[in-house]
Amino acid sequence: MAHIQVPTGVPGIRSLVMFRPETGEHLYNLAQALLRGVSPLTEAERELIAAYVSGRNECMFCMSSHAAASRCLYGEERNVVDEVLNDADRANITPKLKSLLHIAGRVQILGKEVTQNDIDDARSEGATDEEIHDAVLIAATFSMFNRYVDGLASFTPNDASAYEAMGERMAYNGYVSPQKQL
Amino acid sequence: MAHIQVPTGVPGIRSLVMFRPETGEHLYNLAQALLRGVSPLTEAERELIAAYVSGRNECMFCMSSHAAASRCLYGEERNVVDEVLNDADRANITPKLKSLLHIAGRVQILGKEVTQNDIDDARSEGATDEEIHDAVLIAATFSMFNRYVDGLASFTPNDASAYEAMGERMAYNGYVSPQKQL
Repeated sequence: MAHIQVPTGVPGIRSLVMFRPETGEHLYNLAQALLRGVSPLTEAERELIAAYVSGRNECMFCMSSHAAASRCLYGEERNVVDEVLNDADRANITPKLKSLLHIAGRVQILGKEVTQNDIDDARSEGATDEEIHDAVLIAATFSMFNRYVDGLASFTPNDASAYEAMGERMAYNGYVSPQKQL
Repeated sequence: MAHIQVPTGVPGIRSLVMFRPETGEHLYNLAQALLRGVSPLTEAERELIAAYVSGRNECMFCMSSHAAASRCLYGEERNVVDEVLNDADRANITPKLKSLLHIAGRVQILGKEVTQNDIDDARSEGATDEEIHDAVLIAATFSMFNRYVDGLASFTPNDASAYEAMGERMAYNGYVSPQKQL
């Protein structure tokens, strides 16, 4: 049961945003701009970074739902999502994406953990300022969402099919706050 | 020097938001709603939680600027800000605020660190669902801002007077994105 009185049966962040729409609206707008707005990173890659960071933060709800969204968006290459979640260093992804995931992993620990070497490595693989920025902000943003969702013990479904449906909605409809859907 | 090419001499998050206004707009809107919008916590208390979490995340820029804003807003009781930053358990604040800071400290570590006991303690001191929610979301949000600011190594001024001026602007003008100020 959640630590505060949120709508029953509504999973994860959605229940928290229904409890507090004044802040929730901006959280959804941020997710939409960051994960669906213009970026040199594909939507699939951005969802993958979100899932990767959430996994490291042990947030089952965010990891499962964003992994599901990333699988949808990767389509035939969907296997890379589980490869990254199991062992990012050995996943079948480009060296550039690997270097950005490495930076995201540093940010997940703490901002100061990102070293000049990490940045140089990413640049040597062709990463641009925009790509480095977006990887860092996605990692920072999910360090927030993960703490919000778990810090209030919001409802985390157990069955994989719930996340599959959720991932499809996230992949194709994007992030629309509950208020705007009414 | 920052890890990416942001406007020179512009401190902290402001430089990052100028680099990427599409996401920055929502970050400022979130800060404004959370720290200046309607809440059972005073603005001074919310800024204090922000400074406390930023201190624990070793983010000098966010800690110094939000501590300065909190001092402004506390007015004659401004000493409590440094008391909390030095040793929250011994600060001259209400037991309720102490229990909320304790929850914020748990969230700073990780969402799952918040226990039912922490929540029960806060409730026994009179904390409401709304107060617990806002303490958790402020702690989560600053776990994001801290990582964003330090993860990209944005400019962190060293002199106290810079933060004093910044804190006054934050206290009295709130959070207005650089785009909207133009």
